[in-house]
Amino acid sequence: MSHVARKLLTIVTESALEKILPEDFKKLGARGFTITEARGQGSRGMRSGTWDENGNIRIEILCDSVTADAIAHHLQTRYYDDYAMVVFISDVMVLRPDKF
Amino acid sequence: MSHVARKLLTIVTESALEKILPEDFKKLGARGFTITEARGQGSRGMRSGTWDENGNIRIEILCDSVTADAIAHHLQTRYYDDYAMVVFISDVMVLRPDKF
Amino acid sequence: MSHVARKLLTIVTESALEKILPEDFKKLGARGFTITEARGQGSRGMRSGTWDENGNIRIEILCDSVTADAIAHHLQTRYYDDYAMVVFISDVMVLRPDKF
Repeated sequence: MSHVARKLLTIVTESALEKILPEDFKKLGARGFTITEARGQGSRGMRSGTWDENGNIRIEILCDSVTADAIAHHLQTRYYDDYAMVVFISDVMVLRPDKF
Repeated sequence: MSHVARKLLTIVTESALEKILPEDFKKLGARGFTITEARGQGSRGMRSGTWDENGNIRIEILCDSVTADAIAHHLQTRYYDDYAMVVFISDVMVLRPDKF
Repeated sequence: MSHVARKLLTIVTESALEKILPEDFKKLGARGFTITEARGQGSRGMRSGTWDENGNIRIEILCDSVTADAIAHHLQTRYYDDYAMVVFISDVMVLRPDKF
């Protein structure tokens, strides 16, 4: 069984972006992503009044280092000023590396 | 684009604590958190009879090392005896480090 | 407060496996797991037509290195050919290490 190092890029942002972001991910080299519903508080303050209706999403993309950086840079440039968005990257080992 | 090392503190616990914990997090220095609904089994045994109604939650806090340790220590001291709770910490790289 | 290194094994797969996998995890040494609902796209293509009804799940297992490898190997051998499944492993520090 082969383990290969990859990056896990995690994005927590507003649900409003769910229809827009997949196209960005695809253009920048991501081969898949996982979305879970989320809620929370952040530097924009208490969101309990908004997330009930609009919600947040937590997106994970498993990819190589270059793709992770490209997507993170794109998100920062394009969305940080206008949307609540948190991005972080961690090191993971994957099986089936041919898929990422 | 600047990457800065931070800690990701993840807590899986009972939904009953969702209204209590944010105040603790805030006092101990967290600037935000993300919650997702979860279910599962743990050392308290099969929880399928309970989580359907009460549920579990999975909380993530992105913070510096000192804050992560402070929150983890507080949770262990305050809640471990009375609640099902799992806490783990991982290393991540973040963009926008001024927010955490 | 003692921190001990453990592995976090994350599996994203089809909801159809939710009733089958816990037995596998248990046999292979896992002492607990957390499941969250998920959706996404992967190498099997756009899943928006299917996940609305059947959905995906995201499973996390906190365990030692040997158990993580055993479960990952089992999943690869048993399910990769027939199910959409992504598995990755990361390093985490846990409190309460006696539970994992």
